[in-house]
Amino acid sequence: MRSTLKDLARETGLSVATVSLVLNKKRHKIPTVTQERIFTAAQNLNYRPNQLAVSLVKQQSMTIGVIVPDISKYFFSEFTLGVEEEARRSGFNIILSNSMNQWELSGECLEMLSGRCVDAIIMAPSSDTTHDRLLKLKPVIEKSHIPTILIGRDGGELGCSFIIVNQSAGAYQAIKHLLDLGHRKIALLTGSLNLSNTQERIEGCRRAFEEAGIAFDPSCIFEGQYDYDSGLIHAEKVAEAGYTAVFAFSDTIACGVYRTFIKKGIRIPQDISVVGFDNVPFAQMLSVPLTTINQLAHTIGMEAAACAIRESSVNNIAAGVAKKRIIYDPELIERESTCPPLSREDGFC
Amino acid sequence: MRSTLKDLARETGLSVATVSLVLNKKRHKIPTVTQERIFTAAQNLNYRPNQLAVSLVKQQSMTIGVIVPDISKYFFSEFTLGVEEEARRSGFNIILSNSMNQWELSGECLEMLSGRCVDAIIMAPSSDTTHDRLLKLKPVIEKSHIPTILIGRDGGELGCSFIIVNQSAGAYQAIKHLLDLGHRKIALLTGSLNLSNTQERIEGCRRAFEEAGIAFDPSCIFEGQYDYDSGLIHAEKVAEAGYTAVFAFSDTIACGVYRTFIKKGIRIPQDISVVGFDNVPFAQMLSVPLTTINQLAHTIGMEAAACAIRESSVNNIAAGVAKKRIIYDPELIERESTCPPLSREDGFC
Repeated sequence: MRSTLKDLARETGLSVATVSLVLNKKRHKIPTVTQERIFTAAQNLNYRPNQLAVSLVKQQSMTIGVIVPDISKYFFSEFTLGVEEEARRSGFNIILSNSMNQWELSGECLEMLSGRCVDAIIMAPSSDTTHDRLLKLKPVIEKSHIPTILIGRDGGELGCSFIIVNQSAGAYQAIKHLLDLGHRKIALLTGSLNLSNTQERIEGCRRAFEEAGIAFDPSCIFEGQYDYDSGLIHAEKVAEAGYTAVFAFSDTIACGVYRTFIKKGIRIPQDISVVGFDNVPFAQMLSVPLTTINQLAHTIGMEAAACAIRESSVNNIAAGVAKKRIIYDPELIERESTCPPLSREDGFC
Repeated sequence: MRSTLKDLARETGLSVATVSLVLNKKRHKIPTVTQERIFTAAQNLNYRPNQLAVSLVKQQSMTIGVIVPDISKYFFSEFTLGVEEEARRSGFNIILSNSMNQWELSGECLEMLSGRCVDAIIMAPSSDTTHDRLLKLKPVIEKSHIPTILIGRDGGELGCSFIIVNQSAGAYQAIKHLLDLGHRKIALLTGSLNLSNTQERIEGCRRAFEEAGIAFDPSCIFEGQYDYDSGLIHAEKVAEAGYTAVFAFSDTIACGVYRTFIKKGIRIPQDISVVGFDNVPFAQMLSVPLTTINQLAHTIGMEAAACAIRESSVNNIAAGVAKKRIIYDPELIERESTCPPLSREDGFC
């Protein structure tokens, strides 16, 4: 068992009140010799103030709740590392919860963390969180009276600060890069069209085409999941349909594309250029290092922690601190998987 | 602000004592009508018991501290997911800390979590934790009086339960697989020879060779770091020296090997077989899916949480629960990067 003030009192033969006055640096007139006896005993017994009691008195637990869909996914583990680094610099710890990428569980995590008396919550909703489902979290957040920072979704309607990565701007950069290289026939290998991320990325693609004076042809959309198999399967069709470039909506999809292309003897980038999305660590380790879009997970994690700490300070809650709206533009990382298209008879350039 | 017993007392016009008796299900003779008034008010004001106060009274915070070197690394994020899943099933939450893969910080994390009154700590030491450094943590752990589960290192001398992956057995399987295919000239692309993981894996390789009646030739060891560049660089030498197979001590090293081999036109596995270690998600997505060793991160995380919860129960601490020593054998995952060696004039088979 950890040692308590009572143990110190017993050890020194003093009263609990005396020991407490000295250790908590309250005003007192206790002789220096006695103080030293107390400090020595505290060291010998490895006394540390009970953090639970301190938190209870201060009404501050010095913890931030972090809800992510799945910590084993790279974006969220890198993000969480950023949160923890920044939180620790201010003496905060993080309580981590996974929603298993299910929106019902996100709500449960919120309730659970608020029962834990965390000072703030940072939540990245599961990918199946539609706009309607997001709004259902509003009363939960309001009732908790805990400042909540939303990641990846506009928290305006929920009265929350939020940090989003501009998905549309990321996709725009990918397509503009391919258009600048001279590609005109570009396939989009997307995730589910029901997801807001997918919709926003398609919007960015459309904008890039239209700014270049090229009508956006929806037949270039190959809908799949954000997974390897979707890349494997659609790459076959893309090659047959004469596309000179592929924009895969995730690096994992791009991996599937690589596999199929290599099997069919299609050279990357000489025959078909490939751009991914996410900049996972393996993107630079592929047989042809992948040009992709970096979502700045670590930076966003640090920013989220800073935001959470700011909003959790008691004064800010009382004063109704202004909510923040932070939008990051992701960045294009050019590697070796893109080049100008070859002039081919069946090509488009 | 969250509502308190005081708020409920004010709302119902009853005393704090009455409200507390009812909500905490203590014995009382309060009329049912009054009880219902209290429950209704509690619901309206979204009253939840202050978890800090509950923890203080019960001397149990229902939290487990988790210290990992770097959550952004796949093994540790998958491991932490397992810990959290299992912990949550028993009503526990986890406080996550990264030691930034520095052993000094591991010690600081231990101190910090013990100040947090966590009920148990699960610690995966940083890779630079030598045996001497590990022993320096013993007094920190003992003084904390918090059950601590060590991951990946023998905790016997520290008086801790521990879970380790048998690194030697993993390496043994990799080499045995290659020997069974007919390979005799196998290069080992290792991480730093100072690390205990590296030493144990080399030991497993040696055992596999010797069991097959082949003298272990230390010149087959190519020491590097556990990174991509080490694979890139050493793959050149391996190809020139006539090896027919490579056992890369991490999947990341294997990626570097792939890159060099592809550039030099060396076919995997027809010209040279490659085995990795870790079974990271991208191992199966490489241009030639990688045969590798699975370290069972998720399973180990769940086991660690179960062990921590068992040891944290107050009775067990009082009774001095027997420490556990859990050893997992990793498993070989056969994919497409290995095959029998070709008969070559300069070959060895």
